[in-house]
Amino acid sequence: MADHGSWDQPFSIAGTTLGSRFILGTGGAPSMQVIDEIITASGTAMCTVSMRRTDAATGGSLVDVLDRLGVRILPNTAGCRTAREAVTTAELAREALETSWVKLEVVADETTLLPDPFELLDAAEQLVARGFTVLPYTNDDPILARRLQQAGCAAVMPLGSPIGSGLGISNPHNIEVIVAEATVPVILDAGIGTASDAALAMELGCDAVLLASAVTRAQNPAMMASAMANAVTAGRQAHLAGRIPRRSHAHASSPLEGMAIL
Amino acid sequence: MADHGSWDQPFSIAGTTLGSRFILGTGGAPSMQVIDEIITASGTAMCTVSMRRTDAATGGSLVDVLDRLGVRILPNTAGCRTAREAVTTAELAREALETSWVKLEVVADETTLLPDPFELLDAAEQLVARGFTVLPYTNDDPILARRLQQAGCAAVMPLGSPIGSGLGISNPHNIEVIVAEATVPVILDAGIGTASDAALAMELGCDAVLLASAVTRAQNPAMMASAMANAVTAGRQAHLAGRIPRRSHAHASSPLEGMAIL
Amino acid sequence: MADHGSWDQPFSIAGTTLGSRFILGTGGAPSMQVIDEIITASGTAMCTVSMRRTDAATGGSLVDVLDRLGVRILPNTAGCRTAREAVTTAELAREALETSWVKLEVVADETTLLPDPFELLDAAEQLVARGFTVLPYTNDDPILARRLQQAGCAAVMPLGSPIGSGLGISNPHNIEVIVAEATVPVILDAGIGTASDAALAMELGCDAVLLASAVTRAQNPAMMASAMANAVTAGRQAHLAGRIPRRSHAHASSPLEGMAIL
Amino acid sequence: MADHGSWDQPFSIAGTTLGSRFILGTGGAPSMQVIDEIITASGTAMCTVSMRRTDAATGGSLVDVLDRLGVRILPNTAGCRTAREAVTTAELAREALETSWVKLEVVADETTLLPDPFELLDAAEQLVARGFTVLPYTNDDPILARRLQQAGCAAVMPLGSPIGSGLGISNPHNIEVIVAEATVPVILDAGIGTASDAALAMELGCDAVLLASAVTRAQNPAMMASAMANAVTAGRQAHLAGRIPRRSHAHASSPLEGMAIL
Repeated sequence: MADHGSWDQPFSIAGTTLGSRFILGTGGAPSMQVIDEIITASGTAMCTVSMRRTDAATGGSLVDVLDRLGVRILPNTAGCRTAREAVTTAELAREALETSWVKLEVVADETTLLPDPFELLDAAEQLVARGFTVLPYTNDDPILARRLQQAGCAAVMPLGSPIGSGLGISNPHNIEVIVAEATVPVILDAGIGTASDAALAMELGCDAVLLASAVTRAQNPAMMASAMANAVTAGRQAHLAGRIPRRSHAHASSPLEGMAIL
Repeated sequence: MADHGSWDQPFSIAGTTLGSRFILGTGGAPSMQVIDEIITASGTAMCTVSMRRTDAATGGSLVDVLDRLGVRILPNTAGCRTAREAVTTAELAREALETSWVKLEVVADETTLLPDPFELLDAAEQLVARGFTVLPYTNDDPILARRLQQAGCAAVMPLGSPIGSGLGISNPHNIEVIVAEATVPVILDAGIGTASDAALAMELGCDAVLLASAVTRAQNPAMMASAMANAVTAGRQAHLAGRIPRRSHAHASSPLEGMAIL
Repeated sequence: MADHGSWDQPFSIAGTTLGSRFILGTGGAPSMQVIDEIITASGTAMCTVSMRRTDAATGGSLVDVLDRLGVRILPNTAGCRTAREAVTTAELAREALETSWVKLEVVADETTLLPDPFELLDAAEQLVARGFTVLPYTNDDPILARRLQQAGCAAVMPLGSPIGSGLGISNPHNIEVIVAEATVPVILDAGIGTASDAALAMELGCDAVLLASAVTRAQNPAMMASAMANAVTAGRQAHLAGRIPRRSHAHASSPLEGMAIL
Repeated sequence: MADHGSWDQPFSIAGTTLGSRFILGTGGAPSMQVIDEIITASGTAMCTVSMRRTDAATGGSLVDVLDRLGVRILPNTAGCRTAREAVTTAELAREALETSWVKLEVVADETTLLPDPFELLDAAEQLVARGFTVLPYTNDDPILARRLQQAGCAAVMPLGSPIGSGLGISNPHNIEVIVAEATVPVILDAGIGTASDAALAMELGCDAVLLASAVTRAQNPAMMASAMANAVTAGRQAHLAGRIPRRSHAHASSPLEGMAIL
């Protein structure tokens, strides 16, 4: 999909360059076959893998598929509700998957699936101290994003709206504030429902997008994966290209000057 | 860009298949050089050409460039405020450019640049009677769109917001209503400011997108042209792929079932 | 409710001053008892009465109730789909109700209930010629609103969103454009669902609000009537009071200067 | 303004009933004269008083005015950036103003004026332990609101958008989630720009609204105070009255049944 060399800076996290700004989660996919298809269609370079959730439907070895397709694995701590659980899960992932990268997810409850700011920051600090490369899933509060960066996180991953809601980006202003002061990559994570949401995330200045359900639960997952890949590229290009200002009045594209070309 | 054969139906107007769902206007481009670049970057198959507006900056022969690039010409009647002016302009275009296709634009004034429903429908009826293939620029009123179709127009082209405003799609509901009952292609025309707007237009079910200023007046027109092309594809794919429903509550992508992959 | 004398100009249509900026429709009310209650709670000075629709539930004589409560009757042409029908209905109303005022409603179909711009303008012109005081229900197209004013209408009544949808004001920008160039009162008619919608209509500069379903079909119609009355007043006051500008950044209400009051 | 006895439950915080659901801040008022006027026009029963900010313009003794008008004083800790500062400020306020109520404000910086979740919760816990009735200004994160309630706060006061921004309620969904699980009053605090914003806050289920700049910096502060008072009442009534559902299609207020009343 993306051809970074010609028009964009490479996208890097913690010094590692990734070949795509679209990070894919696989939760919710109906089969390993579909996972294979969506990874290919997405052009992604990194997939999240849940250490604590699983899909009976997919079974099989997700890790083997990712290895075969040359896609980097990003273990996550989905399902953890305390810093202690998250740290333990991250340690297990590091041992099992031989990566010190972790998508840190510490939610307050199973209903809202919203991050618990206190357990999250605590876990982030512990994991950084243990040598992990920490990518925390966070809410859209600019202050919490700032604190996570100060704690040494390698990226911040604010939500657009609740996990799986498909509501898109509820508060674009907050995302812009986070982007404006970020010193690490900002990855929009959670809430994206369709391609225009992903494009908007990139237009707001996010460095990448992470999503799962919007693709895995679409009626045609592979086509939606391709849609999202194109949307991420479109949004990134639009961000770099410098959009026209919004005007409250109409503005003719050309002045009126009689029969021009006749 | 788009590879229609594999995943989409071809896009046709009045029986003529176009190789792209992105129609480009060139008004506002700073030079012929830029026009050349944006046409190439957009992958467009049809460009509008104003019969009554011109840009001193571009000068030269726009028509020659379009011919060289193999892009279909769609003359427009921009600047016309009465049915009579529009019909005359369309006739001049047919003679000069050897095409009976016309983007019919009849605006009520030079401030709002909004269509005049009465002059527009009158002009459409006259032009259809004279054998033109009429693509009217209209407001987002579903009833006017219906009337234009009943008059024999080959497409309807509702605005998202006023020309050149960059405000995007102000009333998505109206566009959905127009799409739901359309018997001809619906082309979102006017108001698009950035890539996510174009993606949204396609997600709402529009068959194509027409824009000019958002590309020609961007800081980097060629990159924005590419952004829009990718966004149109992304939005079309997302529309076909069947998005997830919006939920007011979170929804975990995978059930929680202990250590899944270890 | 409203106390115009002290802080607002009186609200007049065609030289007749009305004591309230809240015009009430009664369609959908479950009983005459409820109609009585909502008229009282609303403080309205004018109610629409349908000449062609009726509610079995209310039965009785709506006109008698309005007379008793001292509320002006505004007959409407709801259900009419052609200029001819509307003119006939208005003439019947004038004879039966002894008023030359008419809310002109000419819809294109029973599904969208959207105005038909062509039949509407035709009917407006005919009725003005016959000496009616014409208040047309129109869409939110500024050009159609302009044409209706040029035809001699005594007010324009744009929709916020489709009748009975409760979607509020879909395109505030259009309403602002209509208000900016209006030479007669602008009355927001249709689409209001709750109090904040009514307040917004007035903040956008509308002179009055007309609604029915939002009150008659609320769970507690009388309380919602009071809510709407307060909202209309609130929105009118806010419009006159001159709101603070929107800022993209925070702004402390007071400078920081140490312990101020101790 | 409000007449709680007849249609609403009284509004109480920590067992104390307040006669109005509109809490006013006075920061930004151009003079003591204006403060007097807006308190009267607002019908408020409680005003915030900054312990660390002041307005040269107002000078004089705000506390004396509030006492004279019989309005309860709610000291705030505006300008505090650490729990330690906030606790000290609250203690000074308790001594000086003889109230153990405090609006707890602990912001992360002077640019965003956003709450610091960590210092805020720490301060809340300390103040509750010291016997204060704590009303914390918080962001719109439902999890932080939950934690503040668990810490013993007497209310939660989420922002609609940044202080002084006038952007209204950026994320209504979050406010609804906070309201849905709240066990103490929810008071919308910060971001309100105009009357419809205040009405919306109440429609979302908030128990009260707190604002300052929207009134004190309006062109006509007293009229805006009255607008806000009416909007709070309107929104509260609309919330209690049970609004109609939003429909994507039109819905006639009355069935069509021929000439009804003739």
